[in-house]
Amino acid sequence: MPVESTIEVRVRYAETDQMGVVYHANYFVWCDMARTEYLRAAGASYKDLEAAGLRLAVVDASARYKSPARFDELIAVRCWVREVESRRISFGYAMQRPADGRMLATAQTTLIALDSHHALSTIPPGVRARLVPTPDPVRL
Amino acid sequence: MPVESTIEVRVRYAETDQMGVVYHANYFVWCDMARTEYLRAAGASYKDLEAAGLRLAVVDASARYKSPARFDELIAVRCWVREVESRRISFGYAMQRPADGRMLATAQTTLIALDSHHALSTIPPGVRARLVPTPDPVRL
Amino acid sequence: MPVESTIEVRVRYAETDQMGVVYHANYFVWCDMARTEYLRAAGASYKDLEAAGLRLAVVDASARYKSPARFDELIAVRCWVREVESRRISFGYAMQRPADGRMLATAQTTLIALDSHHALSTIPPGVRARLVPTPDPVRL
Amino acid sequence: MPVESTIEVRVRYAETDQMGVVYHANYFVWCDMARTEYLRAAGASYKDLEAAGLRLAVVDASARYKSPARFDELIAVRCWVREVESRRISFGYAMQRPADGRMLATAQTTLIALDSHHALSTIPPGVRARLVPTPDPVRL
Repeated sequence: MPVESTIEVRVRYAETDQMGVVYHANYFVWCDMARTEYLRAAGASYKDLEAAGLRLAVVDASARYKSPARFDELIAVRCWVREVESRRISFGYAMQRPADGRMLATAQTTLIALDSHHALSTIPPGVRARLVPTPDPVRL
Repeated sequence: MPVESTIEVRVRYAETDQMGVVYHANYFVWCDMARTEYLRAAGASYKDLEAAGLRLAVVDASARYKSPARFDELIAVRCWVREVESRRISFGYAMQRPADGRMLATAQTTLIALDSHHALSTIPPGVRARLVPTPDPVRL
Repeated sequence: MPVESTIEVRVRYAETDQMGVVYHANYFVWCDMARTEYLRAAGASYKDLEAAGLRLAVVDASARYKSPARFDELIAVRCWVREVESRRISFGYAMQRPADGRMLATAQTTLIALDSHHALSTIPPGVRARLVPTPDPVRL
Repeated sequence: MPVESTIEVRVRYAETDQMGVVYHANYFVWCDMARTEYLRAAGASYKDLEAAGLRLAVVDASARYKSPARFDELIAVRCWVREVESRRISFGYAMQRPADGRMLATAQTTLIALDSHHALSTIPPGVRARLVPTPDPVRL
């Protein structure tokens, strides 16, 4: 099981705004991508979970922006599990620019388990066993 | 039946890019919104069509960009039907800035009818009867 | 000065995801739109502030999602000022579906003042005087 | 000089819509990314071109959608130069799913050279020399 997983994203022109930096809402998309890769690495591909009738819906999201990301930069997005309960799971994220080590943003999201009709459900025990919480490696 | 319908959109900060203008792909979102309102005005709400098992999927899209749209501007998006066949329908669009009458972009999209399993389908005759082609009011 | 301002947004097809609901990051775009209208109503149009060399950059954003928004729904987005200091301002948001009064999400964002070179700056006193904090009308 | 360059994108959840497929406008973002990598491979990084005062603005864009891309799929996006003139350049694109070789979409965009004040400009000869047109490898 991964304790943490990291993806790299190349900033898209479409992700910038007229301030010349990445628009703040787009960081949550990167978090989503990092979470998808974390789940894949943990042997619980989100695509497969959805095919099996599970939905993980975001119920809480927050981010702190420290330094702007810019067009064409490579950004490393780390993702880890903060807490797991039977019906909900929280992830932490850190976005850093490898070129200079600068921390750009941190974030956290909490997701709840729903079935395919969007009714409250539970995270299957076999999946939950693979999602091991770890202390935050950076301050969120 | 409307021959044409017009919506107004206020340019969102999120729609701009670091060139200081609206990112080109976002104009297709405005076309989609104008098409949705055209269908509603024609008594064929797309939400209702989907609920009834129909999907209209874009198979062809093109746009010509003449002058940039900018943050906070109001943009009028006109939409009309260009052609209708049993399985496909083409729409035309013109995006104009009412403040100075400037034409910003024109576009066209073609959509095909699919059923809820994404198999080829036909536009229901009752819907098709409401979608009346009109000559292009502007050159596309 | 407005104590609060409200906009209505019609959910775009582009804003939905394959879960059949609005993708969570898009709510922050609606908050941004509501903030833009709040500022305009307060006589401090963000477009004019930018033209005068001020930037308001998001440094902190969070949202709680209670019930999903869906395609074609009309959503009311309320915005108010929570706190103002010389260099930073916090806004609160509540997103509600007028059709049934359902609260869909609440959010808050904090922005800092930057100059046109992205250096720390201050909110001009004349602008600050127009941004009057009010107690949260709903629990965030 | 590259005759063609190819990137791979992993479909993001944010890129899907409630039809369960990638929203049509998002393919133009992938084309933009592929063009950025083509230019980098040609020794004419777009970030550097912008820093040197050049802007390439899209004046024409079109796409044909043949088969839908879905969440989590890897999509190969090929990009090549179709035509170059002193003030404008056209690119072609083909989007294919490597897993089964399926062609998903083709596209083309034309861009014009602008200076940093958005006035018409020319593509610097040194850049133009690196952008070598090639016959379309697939039918657009």
